[in-house]
Amino acid sequence: MNRLTVIATVAALCCSAVSFAQVKEDFVPSPNNQPGKQYPMVNSERCVRVQVKAPEAQSVKLDIGGVKYELNKDAEGVWTGESAPQDEGFHYYQLNIDGADVPDPSSLYYYGASRWGSGVDVPAPDQDFYALKNVPQGKVSEVYYWSEVNQAMRHCFIYTPAGYDTDLDKRYPVLYLQHGGGENEYGWPQQGRTAQIMDNLIAEGKAVPFIIVMDNGTWTMPRPAAPGPRPEGPRPDGQRHRGGRHQGPQGRPQGGFGLPDGWADGFMNTLVKDIIPMVDANYRTIADKDHRAMAGLSMGGMQTKAIALPHSEIFGSLGIFSGGTITVEDADNTPGFRENNRLVFISFGSKELENRNPAFGGDPKVETDKLAESGHNAHFYVSPGTAHEWQSWRRSLYQYAQLLFKW
Amino acid sequence: MNRLTVIATVAALCCSAVSFAQVKEDFVPSPNNQPGKQYPMVNSERCVRVQVKAPEAQSVKLDIGGVKYELNKDAEGVWTGESAPQDEGFHYYQLNIDGADVPDPSSLYYYGASRWGSGVDVPAPDQDFYALKNVPQGKVSEVYYWSEVNQAMRHCFIYTPAGYDTDLDKRYPVLYLQHGGGENEYGWPQQGRTAQIMDNLIAEGKAVPFIIVMDNGTWTMPRPAAPGPRPEGPRPDGQRHRGGRHQGPQGRPQGGFGLPDGWADGFMNTLVKDIIPMVDANYRTIADKDHRAMAGLSMGGMQTKAIALPHSEIFGSLGIFSGGTITVEDADNTPGFRENNRLVFISFGSKELENRNPAFGGDPKVETDKLAESGHNAHFYVSPGTAHEWQSWRRSLYQYAQLLFKW
Repeated sequence: MNRLTVIATVAALCCSAVSFAQVKEDFVPSPNNQPGKQYPMVNSERCVRVQVKAPEAQSVKLDIGGVKYELNKDAEGVWTGESAPQDEGFHYYQLNIDGADVPDPSSLYYYGASRWGSGVDVPAPDQDFYALKNVPQGKVSEVYYWSEVNQAMRHCFIYTPAGYDTDLDKRYPVLYLQHGGGENEYGWPQQGRTAQIMDNLIAEGKAVPFIIVMDNGTWTMPRPAAPGPRPEGPRPDGQRHRGGRHQGPQGRPQGGFGLPDGWADGFMNTLVKDIIPMVDANYRTIADKDHRAMAGLSMGGMQTKAIALPHSEIFGSLGIFSGGTITVEDADNTPGFRENNRLVFISFGSKELENRNPAFGGDPKVETDKLAESGHNAHFYVSPGTAHEWQSWRRSLYQYAQLLFKW
Repeated sequence: MNRLTVIATVAALCCSAVSFAQVKEDFVPSPNNQPGKQYPMVNSERCVRVQVKAPEAQSVKLDIGGVKYELNKDAEGVWTGESAPQDEGFHYYQLNIDGADVPDPSSLYYYGASRWGSGVDVPAPDQDFYALKNVPQGKVSEVYYWSEVNQAMRHCFIYTPAGYDTDLDKRYPVLYLQHGGGENEYGWPQQGRTAQIMDNLIAEGKAVPFIIVMDNGTWTMPRPAAPGPRPEGPRPDGQRHRGGRHQGPQGRPQGGFGLPDGWADGFMNTLVKDIIPMVDANYRTIADKDHRAMAGLSMGGMQTKAIALPHSEIFGSLGIFSGGTITVEDADNTPGFRENNRLVFISFGSKELENRNPAFGGDPKVETDKLAESGHNAHFYVSPGTAHEWQSWRRSLYQYAQLLFKW
């Protein structure tokens, strides 16, 4: 039993295993529940309580934050139980019913951990910044487009700010915003709450209006031929991302960090040759590097560094959320970067910094401060009390968006 | 055991219970699978095969089309089994694991039967009309707006055809298109494949380009106050429809067909006072009755009759898919309808007509033919081999869209 397991077990005892008397009974339904569903619930101690009817099951568990919590069965065959306290913000989770990992039938579904599955939002003191409010609303559009690089139809989401459809003479800067590993293009518009964050910021005058393109950074390979006896022609799908199914075996070793081979080069080609031209042709963009930025979380941050650092003539600003740093050496050794780049933004959750992986290089705050001291417009942000999770990235977007395109 | 159950049981024996030797082994993955997942699969006999790992389970069933099929467990605890032949097109389904009704962790999720759950598409000979193709693409936008009627933020999807974002002088007709009971505003853009149907029709010159607004016809009541100790301010949700949760007890008896009380009046107010003004203010519409239509499936068709028949000065065309008819008496007894209405479109699945519920009135084909003979532009369509399911409604939209706004 390692240290993390001990901590989790002690925390679980606090919330669940000892007795119901020790659980603070102020649970309220999660905002991520399906219509009409009372569970999952969250209490003021940030414990997550789930409930599922499984009359003939022998064992039902809640699997959240890497820990499994046993539920208890009542006389009607309804299983109920709760987790240890979770961090503020959004978490993926699942149920385990007699050994089967399944989504909770009561929650809405989100794509992460390489699956569509359950999610729960734990209240945060600052949740107002990503709340849906009666302010002028932008919108998120679901867009399919032909990719020459991939020889396939691809799929992305595009946020346009309030007024885009009525103020037809105005042109806008564009941020290309990427999800993390095991996630897809649904991450930022759904659990990332991109539209709500931006609408609220713009309504308060804290951000300039800009377009945000959220594409899929993993699926960058051509589809294989349709197998066997499937019907001719395009498949009748496309409502959802069709990632892994179409990647096919690549016959080459996997790259670092468990990323698919070609994750940066392949996406760079798609981004530069297909996505940006599609966006500039169909949206009223300001199509120059000063008004084009790239940012991403985790794997998407690494992709941002791999693509936007060497191509500062295309992306004049970059943001890396929980995905690495830009050092003075990176800046000085990359032709054109010092002249072209207008903004570097680096962020992490505080718990990531406490448990920092040395493989990611030096202390990111020290490195970013050095970059700023060297005369670069570089900013460092720490999300308090959060780990490698969406609350860190919602807050990072909130901070980054207030700096972007203000030149 | 009624006749339907006998048929289902015999069909189930054909596909599943006798032996694997009798199942045609040409299964291919469903287009509705999660990325990387091989199951569910469908064979050329339209049987659906599912697979789930549940090592400690005693019983796992596939629940589709109102019938439960037992799965078989292998030595690794993986359960596999298949259904009887299903109709062509899209079907909701779920798994039952030791008494727990849960989504299949391998499928994508759709809202129907009053839940987010699994869906599977069975190949159809005419599936090309709703396939994603490399033709000029419209897009579907997710839109939030303030509703005075509901005193709440509401949520809809709006399809705009290819060229809408670049041909800025052009104005468009609008179709208001409603889902059925137990469904929500995700139905038409997801399982309904509205964008693909329209993009393909427009690319072939078979339909004129128009805007389609897909809103929620069930959730029409103000939210109750937030319960107990929940945080102040709007909830940090909104990525998905929040239907039943917010309807609250209404304290009045339910109307016919199991519909919530107020389902038509409430939605009519929302539609006429909030949705149409929002659309006309934010989109380049042609804002008159000749260029505004309403249609819907099942409950949405009944709403269309309840709203658009008496308000032909607002909606100059109407479509009712599996939701009733417009009789000569309806037309003659509704002031203004004969003068204002440009198009009546009525449709059903052929299996609905075979098992017609007399409560819906006379034979809809006879009634529609009479309406046409009386001099009205009335059309009747039958979807061959389908029941009260999405394939009937995809085909209905395909037919209806080719008639609309061609005046």
